[in-house]
Amino acid sequence: MTLAIAPAAARDDAEARILGAALRDDRAHRRLAWLTDRIGPRLSGSENLTRAIVWAEEQMRGDGLERVRTEPVAVPHWERGREIGEIVSPTRHPLALLTLGGSVATAENGVQASVVVADDLEHLARLGESVRGKIVLFDKEILRNGGPDGSRGYGSAAALRTRGASEAARLGAVASLVRSLGTADYRLPHTGAMRYEDGVPRIPSAAIAAEDAELIRRLTTAGQDVQVSLTLTPITHPDAESANVVGELRGRERPEEIVVLACHLDSWDVGTGAIDDGVGCVAVMEALRILRELELRPRRTIRAVLFTNEENGLAGAEDYARRHADELASHVAAIEMDSGAGAPLGFGITAGEGAEVALREMAAPLRALGAGEIRKGGGGADISTLAPAGVPQIGLWQDTTTYFDYHHTHADTLDKVDAGALARSVAALALIGYRLAEAETTLPRIPSKAEGAGN
Amino acid sequence: MTLAIAPAAARDDAEARILGAALRDDRAHRRLAWLTDRIGPRLSGSENLTRAIVWAEEQMRGDGLERVRTEPVAVPHWERGREIGEIVSPTRHPLALLTLGGSVATAENGVQASVVVADDLEHLARLGESVRGKIVLFDKEILRNGGPDGSRGYGSAAALRTRGASEAARLGAVASLVRSLGTADYRLPHTGAMRYEDGVPRIPSAAIAAEDAELIRRLTTAGQDVQVSLTLTPITHPDAESANVVGELRGRERPEEIVVLACHLDSWDVGTGAIDDGVGCVAVMEALRILRELELRPRRTIRAVLFTNEENGLAGAEDYARRHADELASHVAAIEMDSGAGAPLGFGITAGEGAEVALREMAAPLRALGAGEIRKGGGGADISTLAPAGVPQIGLWQDTTTYFDYHHTHADTLDKVDAGALARSVAALALIGYRLAEAETTLPRIPSKAEGAGN
Repeated sequence: MTLAIAPAAARDDAEARILGAALRDDRAHRRLAWLTDRIGPRLSGSENLTRAIVWAEEQMRGDGLERVRTEPVAVPHWERGREIGEIVSPTRHPLALLTLGGSVATAENGVQASVVVADDLEHLARLGESVRGKIVLFDKEILRNGGPDGSRGYGSAAALRTRGASEAARLGAVASLVRSLGTADYRLPHTGAMRYEDGVPRIPSAAIAAEDAELIRRLTTAGQDVQVSLTLTPITHPDAESANVVGELRGRERPEEIVVLACHLDSWDVGTGAIDDGVGCVAVMEALRILRELELRPRRTIRAVLFTNEENGLAGAEDYARRHADELASHVAAIEMDSGAGAPLGFGITAGEGAEVALREMAAPLRALGAGEIRKGGGGADISTLAPAGVPQIGLWQDTTTYFDYHHTHADTLDKVDAGALARSVAALALIGYRLAEAETTLPRIPSKAEGAGN
Repeated sequence: MTLAIAPAAARDDAEARILGAALRDDRAHRRLAWLTDRIGPRLSGSENLTRAIVWAEEQMRGDGLERVRTEPVAVPHWERGREIGEIVSPTRHPLALLTLGGSVATAENGVQASVVVADDLEHLARLGESVRGKIVLFDKEILRNGGPDGSRGYGSAAALRTRGASEAARLGAVASLVRSLGTADYRLPHTGAMRYEDGVPRIPSAAIAAEDAELIRRLTTAGQDVQVSLTLTPITHPDAESANVVGELRGRERPEEIVVLACHLDSWDVGTGAIDDGVGCVAVMEALRILRELELRPRRTIRAVLFTNEENGLAGAEDYARRHADELASHVAAIEMDSGAGAPLGFGITAGEGAEVALREMAAPLRALGAGEIRKGGGGADISTLAPAGVPQIGLWQDTTTYFDYHHTHADTLDKVDAGALARSVAALALIGYRLAEAETTLPRIPSKAEGAGN
């Protein structure tokens, strides 16, 4: 009987089964509850991350995936320690703060100095030597969805967090604070990674709640000398052992050609890493499990990669690209889900000319779920290391209206994840993963720089 | 010229001047910035509250108010101390918590026990002796504006916070936790007052963030023995000296008849007491200042009373009622603003029959500001001690949609106050205060219980 069905009809049937299976089961959500409630936050180097890796490997084996394994990689091991900050003059006011990942500690008895407020790096440059001996506060507000013209989103201020400390230290500052990169007003500090530039003194750095940044700005604007005291005791340990977790559905015709479904299993150490990015990992796992359960074995291999150390190093992504260098030419696409738990809207894609049109056709069955739109530009931090080899980069495009309310905070917890939106994301990943692995032709690859130069 | 204006026209002119003056000046907001930024939180017994009392008295004198004075009263003096809570089994998870005001401390090395979740006091009663030796967690969610039918608001769960500890202790519990009485999900604990019942062991009590309550419930529902460790070190000191702050505009014809405008100057010790109730106090101060500046001296006296110790004792309100017992019969109305910083919608009133109709007519000039609605039932905690003497109770009715997102938390800060909504609240208080003080007749009083018995 099966032989009598025309290929298009068979594909339609497979797609309907994928959508139906994704929407009728809450296994992804139940797995996320386990990952966040029973294991918890998963910072690189932590025991929790190791437990999560063991757990994910077991789960994928239990799902019947193939070639399930861990691929070991050394990762940074930074530990938060205590963190106390206070305005001590002209009034006393405790700061809601989180040390930035990678920061050095203050002196044992802390640091106390006057604060200078900088709007951004350009403003800091204009302040110049006047910040010597001071604490610099970078105070730039970001807005949901980037504000009216999209220019005031997370990306518009991220450099203040990652590079602010070194830029301030170069001018003689003794510590660096950044207004949290967040879009809500619940006195909630947002942590994140920072990096030191070589050859510049390493000064301690923390993010403070928006309310506290605004208070300091009001006081300094009123001409007050605002003295802040900080005691931060983070420790950078030697690199720790970690691993990417990999599992596959081997392709039936061209198993050497690979579609990667990606997420990251590590998280920050506050909250429980539910929206960043536990939700992405359970969705990826579930997408492969559904295809396996439905016995839909596409032409090519679909490979789930649960990356380690996305948050503070990208060591997992870099290791993957090195380890699999020989087969990157046959990676036909990589899809990442790492934009929170909002409703899936479609996909963003970075690839060669014509890729959007091809992907739009493949995503058509997702339109009724509101998840079938395609936009130019997309990917994810973990799969970005595959871009130099030309691997088409696809990111699940989600509603991120409230993502930066919770991202990197104590409030990144399970309750922020809507089970329905998660099920629809699973449907989107499973369907596009299947279509890309089954398609007769592959997506046009990212042109190499030499090829692209003529454009 | 003035003598030629008919009374109604003169009143219209006065009203227009009041509205205009309230809306064109941001002095109330600037005062609130001082109170919250420079003085900060103002818990009873704290140095900050004393500073705020001195400041408010100075401000009212500077405004040219009459008979400005403090009326001393002893208040409870409870101090928070350290507070640490953690789920230690079956997983380790720090609790975001705030000790409840009035709670005793745990033993020096803390308390650790299994948690039993109770939906409410009735559920606790059914659990009975099974809570002996355990920590009881009262986990009841409240919803913005009380949810679809209004039944799930703050009031529906407040008893769990105020009485939960004694009810649990009566059954042998060793500590009591309550899901924060809040309506947002930013891992933010909400403090508040609790009371011990005489003759029942006093057990420590704290509020935990909604997320943490939900986690504990999920774990216990899954059959896990959830062990929580708590170390709380609050101290109850001897009562401290404090005061209500009073200032007046003396009436031109019947100065012995009084309209009270009320708020409370104390706050919790977290956040800076901006919406609860710094905003009410600067609005009351500004309402009188505007009338003074406009030289509008109504028939009766308008008295601003900035109460102390609303949050954890009501000692200021009780003292006022005792101290002024002889003149309560000539208190013709009391108006309180203590519902946050949301837009003013009108007033709620508790008084004798016909009072709503009379107040609705007086509030007509506020309709264009969206602040002219009148509803039955209203008042405020501080003026409630005047109700037994029949004083009509009026509360500024405000939009409280987000009030319980921030109330009693670290996030009760200046940025939650919209300067425009505050200016409109000032307009509403000044206008209604003026109308009540100027009216030829007074509002029907609350019937005494004997009189009311026949209704």
